[in-house]
Amino acid sequence: MSISVSFQGEHGAFSEQAALSYFGPRAVTVPCAQFRDVFDAVRKRRVRFGIVPVENSLFGSIAQNYDLLLEYPLTIVGELKLRIRHCLLALPGVPLKKVRHVFSHPQALGQSDRFLRTLPGVQVHQFYDTAGAAKMLADEGRTDAAAVASLQAAAHYGLRVLRKGIETDRRNYTRFAVLSAEPRVPRRRPKTTLAFKTAHTPGSLAACLAAFAEQEIDLLKIESRPIVGSPWEYVFYVDIDSAPHRPRCAAALRGLRRHASFIKVLGSYEAGNVVH
Amino acid sequence: MSISVSFQGEHGAFSEQAALSYFGPRAVTVPCAQFRDVFDAVRKRRVRFGIVPVENSLFGSIAQNYDLLLEYPLTIVGELKLRIRHCLLALPGVPLKKVRHVFSHPQALGQSDRFLRTLPGVQVHQFYDTAGAAKMLADEGRTDAAAVASLQAAAHYGLRVLRKGIETDRRNYTRFAVLSAEPRVPRRRPKTTLAFKTAHTPGSLAACLAAFAEQEIDLLKIESRPIVGSPWEYVFYVDIDSAPHRPRCAAALRGLRRHASFIKVLGSYEAGNVVH
Repeated sequence: MSISVSFQGEHGAFSEQAALSYFGPRAVTVPCAQFRDVFDAVRKRRVRFGIVPVENSLFGSIAQNYDLLLEYPLTIVGELKLRIRHCLLALPGVPLKKVRHVFSHPQALGQSDRFLRTLPGVQVHQFYDTAGAAKMLADEGRTDAAAVASLQAAAHYGLRVLRKGIETDRRNYTRFAVLSAEPRVPRRRPKTTLAFKTAHTPGSLAACLAAFAEQEIDLLKIESRPIVGSPWEYVFYVDIDSAPHRPRCAAALRGLRRHASFIKVLGSYEAGNVVH
Repeated sequence: MSISVSFQGEHGAFSEQAALSYFGPRAVTVPCAQFRDVFDAVRKRRVRFGIVPVENSLFGSIAQNYDLLLEYPLTIVGELKLRIRHCLLALPGVPLKKVRHVFSHPQALGQSDRFLRTLPGVQVHQFYDTAGAAKMLADEGRTDAAAVASLQAAAHYGLRVLRKGIETDRRNYTRFAVLSAEPRVPRRRPKTTLAFKTAHTPGSLAACLAAFAEQEIDLLKIESRPIVGSPWEYVFYVDIDSAPHRPRCAAALRGLRRHASFIKVLGSYEAGNVVH
């Protein structure tokens, strides 16, 4: 049976690669224009799962997706860390020495800058999207150009990989959250993402975090976000290494309730592996 | 006397608008390709100041600039919150009804989607950059097209503003940090950004934050970032509403030193206003 998964971007995007890595060959990927559309597709049961980036090792958290997690009645049921590897792609039969133009998103070009400068006489052109640049090469049948994009884009648009892993900094990972309308109880290596609000008084956050420390629950990530329209209130997004079905986590959440004005568990799931 | 300021992007970028808002007409803005180039220009004294985005209300923190703050011997001496207002721009003499194509960065197009859908028969095209789209209209003299970009881009490329503030969500603000090689002591409304590392044991962060709570110093922002290459260590970026020249802040930093293995003050500055 196939598994339908919504993602943001065009076919060949890193999010699609994450969906295929997580669900394997049974995944049927459904591209969406905006992150909100990914959430809508899951909520309206047009797809069974959604997948969205929540954090990148170079660029930080994707706040918009945390805000959507707070807004939508969906839950995180899995995570995946994908190594972002840029490749130089061209139409079949186009050798590296025939490449005169390279197209890609400015970030991908910047990350591959050191390699691109080794190509003599090549002009670099900024494009709105890595997968979009790959699509353009294929649509226009360009034999003088290459794109910097994912392996997934090569597979989707029938391009050849001229060079693999051309990024200067190899420490580029994106963490993805798998979304569902139905919660799951993680069996192994449980992790929970939750949001809470505190009064904006000195020490209120320290008191909230002490609730976890008392139960020896480890904090894996923390981030504050101002609440729009409430200048003195904050929402904190926290990842912990436990899940509410475990007694210590349940006790920590009871402790947290004494200091937080609002708590929402955004999902419990098994800690994900890194996919290279 | 003029004040030289480096920023990332093309002329007309929101970062350039932030520089001009902060320094006024004496600012001489110097465009840079990458964020790192902005830092380098300040360190090598090619410019007196740099300005970089550190946080956006919709998209979250720009982790790369926090990491560069940690790496470079520079300091934050000011901040500014700029309301991101998208405008529809075209060449002088081109009325709205002649516009058949709209170019911009996908995020700006997404944020202006509701307005753009009210324009009959208009095709939307993704572009790598908002200011870049404005530049292209001017360079190619296109009389059938418009760009979604900043007021600053209109001024720089000699375009007319067909519609101002076309974004659906008005709560789009970017916070910028002003960088210098020389620290300053803020006179009023002091704010300090600092980075610290703790041992990755349950409760270590709670203990660090208690050091501020004991001195009744308020936490304005907190964020954890994994340290690349040290899987169990984290760096925390924190904003507090005080500065080290004040006795309570100095005491809090002494308290913090008992629990943190590393502390770097990234800058003390006067809390910035919102520029609309």
